[in-house]
Amino acid sequence: MRDQALSYAVTRQQAQLEQLKELLSIPSISAQPQHKSDMSRAAQWLADHLLAMGMQRAQVMPTAGHPVVYAEWLGAGQNKPTVLIYGHYDVQPPEPFELWQSDPFKPEVRGQNLYARGASDDKGQVFTHVKAVEAYLKSSGKLPVNVKFTIEGEEEIGGPSLDPFIEQNAKLLTSSVALISDTGMPTPDLPALTYALRGLCYMEVQVTGPKRDLHSGSFGGAVYNPIQALAEIIVGMKDAHGHITLPGFYDRVRPLDEDERKSLAKVPFDEAAFRAEAGVPATWGEEGYTVLEQITARPTLDCNGIWGGYTGEGSKTVLPSKALAKISMRLVPDQDHEEVARLFRDHVIKVAPPQVKVEVRSLHGGKPAIVERSSPVIRAAATALERAFNRRPVFVREGGSIPVVSTFKSVLGIPTVLMGFGLSDDNLHSPNEKFYLPNFYRGIQASIHFLDELAQAP
Amino acid sequence: MRDQALSYAVTRQQAQLEQLKELLSIPSISAQPQHKSDMSRAAQWLADHLLAMGMQRAQVMPTAGHPVVYAEWLGAGQNKPTVLIYGHYDVQPPEPFELWQSDPFKPEVRGQNLYARGASDDKGQVFTHVKAVEAYLKSSGKLPVNVKFTIEGEEEIGGPSLDPFIEQNAKLLTSSVALISDTGMPTPDLPALTYALRGLCYMEVQVTGPKRDLHSGSFGGAVYNPIQALAEIIVGMKDAHGHITLPGFYDRVRPLDEDERKSLAKVPFDEAAFRAEAGVPATWGEEGYTVLEQITARPTLDCNGIWGGYTGEGSKTVLPSKALAKISMRLVPDQDHEEVARLFRDHVIKVAPPQVKVEVRSLHGGKPAIVERSSPVIRAAATALERAFNRRPVFVREGGSIPVVSTFKSVLGIPTVLMGFGLSDDNLHSPNEKFYLPNFYRGIQASIHFLDELAQAP
Repeated sequence: MRDQALSYAVTRQQAQLEQLKELLSIPSISAQPQHKSDMSRAAQWLADHLLAMGMQRAQVMPTAGHPVVYAEWLGAGQNKPTVLIYGHYDVQPPEPFELWQSDPFKPEVRGQNLYARGASDDKGQVFTHVKAVEAYLKSSGKLPVNVKFTIEGEEEIGGPSLDPFIEQNAKLLTSSVALISDTGMPTPDLPALTYALRGLCYMEVQVTGPKRDLHSGSFGGAVYNPIQALAEIIVGMKDAHGHITLPGFYDRVRPLDEDERKSLAKVPFDEAAFRAEAGVPATWGEEGYTVLEQITARPTLDCNGIWGGYTGEGSKTVLPSKALAKISMRLVPDQDHEEVARLFRDHVIKVAPPQVKVEVRSLHGGKPAIVERSSPVIRAAATALERAFNRRPVFVREGGSIPVVSTFKSVLGIPTVLMGFGLSDDNLHSPNEKFYLPNFYRGIQASIHFLDELAQAP
Repeated sequence: MRDQALSYAVTRQQAQLEQLKELLSIPSISAQPQHKSDMSRAAQWLADHLLAMGMQRAQVMPTAGHPVVYAEWLGAGQNKPTVLIYGHYDVQPPEPFELWQSDPFKPEVRGQNLYARGASDDKGQVFTHVKAVEAYLKSSGKLPVNVKFTIEGEEEIGGPSLDPFIEQNAKLLTSSVALISDTGMPTPDLPALTYALRGLCYMEVQVTGPKRDLHSGSFGGAVYNPIQALAEIIVGMKDAHGHITLPGFYDRVRPLDEDERKSLAKVPFDEAAFRAEAGVPATWGEEGYTVLEQITARPTLDCNGIWGGYTGEGSKTVLPSKALAKISMRLVPDQDHEEVARLFRDHVIKVAPPQVKVEVRSLHGGKPAIVERSSPVIRAAATALERAFNRRPVFVREGGSIPVVSTFKSVLGIPTVLMGFGLSDDNLHSPNEKFYLPNFYRGIQASIHFLDELAQAP
């Protein structure tokens, strides 16, 4: 069955490319209201496509925002695992247009790349699984496992509709494992499995000094300046070695053992390219860890925004009443974002000078996620990638969050396999987004192998 | 001659009040373009009034902005001193109107106070000197000294026209001493002489980290955050005792000797009222100094504004490219604002971490000022105040700057006597501005005495 599917897929690459170009030509920009009908059109295109290729059911399901495309094929029976394939059909706005070499919604192949908005993020990546499933259904009339698709339309706007959708349709979505392709590979030929994501604890601190803005000539010298107090709070949270000094912050951090550090050290990471992309002359972070560990496997604390007092042109001699900062922490397993928010709040209130008033608000939180590298689903994915790419995948951690992974865990109780085919030069969210076509085709093969491996997994 | 003037003045209080009310009823709001003709009207009213009461010359002189009223009486001869009386006829905007108990431009006496915008700042105060000069001219046909008036119209907008006016008319304005009534008294019956003003050094610091805003999930942990760097720079400029740690900052500060501290300790200062006005539970400042010393006689460093990164609603996980702060220092004699700006710049560039770029700009600077308490002009003013108020004045320093004092010193080479009749509850720049009428009348007497004392000074 697998070999038929592989053979089917490999002989139909031209059709796969043309179909992907058709999907990419729909400007499904979730952030722009004028593209609301394009959003519906893209969703309907996917549902029609899924039904036509042999899914038992495929439909556009409404939400309070943009709709979700749901499809299923459950013919493998209850004794076989069910894979929930997640992706998103919405794309980032293409602006600024003038920096695109070709129209963002007229997909164009140049060299080995397909250029279009959404090519890699995420239409091209989710389409690898659509085409893998099609290969099985068209060549053998069946799949080795049950498959459900959930392709949403609000990923690029951090939309609020997906979590309620999953909660309300938890029974419909019941599965054994989730599969997402919305991450990347370190180099074009080296496959990767992301097994951990960082969580987030996002806070806001408001410091109030005098009850109104004061004249610094009349009051300066005897009033605690709230900007000063806020700066002291910020500075007091990190030491000169990049360690976070918030008491209790590291208590639940799962240490990196030697085995994992060796595994991470195998991931190609180009520090010079990292510095160039960030535009900094040198990196700076927690001592004792590599840059890759710092940005993916260790927790962080960053001030995301600060403001207070006079911020206009020229000079105004104001001793301000208020200063505010947004401060967020990236969390790693097994930190708990609610506990960290409490530690943060307690610490800020404790260290603030008595001459000012502080208010601390929690703005957002998300759990970190980790899947054991030795778990059966990860082993199945690793084997699948090795077969498709002829190379053993590296195991990577991701510095950001993919909130749906938390939701799958908490609502459906399932782990997620993150098997990504993007490259760091794919220009996600930027002009000239592209997808490296050899990985589109190898991705389809990897997905075919994964479904097969999963059927045999213990 | 003096006694005739005193007697003339004291019997014409009703007329003095009515004339002041007439001047106050002109809404000469320099900041509001729709009041441009009222500005001209107020200037012309003053020039007409000065000419009618016997000044040899009085005219409205144009500038690039609002005009200056100039008047002179030089009949005392070259052997007598010339006093340059400075004031301003423009007023602050009255908004919010709804908080005024009576119309800001329909002056109303309630109790012992005259309520109107400009009553104390500065029409009422400058009018004390107009009426003192009138009392001499009307009762004796002459003055004991030569007198020049310079009454400007851009004080409340920090207008740019006065300095060029003084420079271009330096010969016309040649004088022995300047006299300004635009300051205050500690309590209603205790006169005060301000003998020192603080200067200002106002800087802006821009810290650039990454070349663009980065995603904190992808880069957080290995990139020096410019807000963090800026906060460290700010915090590093002051120690826990409120001392400024900028190297060299205190080098030229003239220490307060025991004699001066004793003199300052005699100034009534209500710390509870100060806290209430600032709206803070406790004061905080440089250890080893009283609050009054902290806010008037010691240099300070305050952050006037700060901004960087995401400052909108909610949470955005940005690792910002830039952070900026406006930081200003109040200076005391003999600090030099240009030297302090250099020290500041050098220090910031030295302490900034190598992973970020800092740019330091000087936005504004002003010299501190001091007149020896033992100088003949100050002694003349002290005697005059004692005679008018039947109490020895206290000697105070002012925390803010009055830039024209520097200009008089640098362009005309003359010291300034600051003899103020305002009270802390006069609601300057706020609704229900008022002038305490007993001090309007005693102010006229003090001015009469001052001109007389000055004629006899060595």
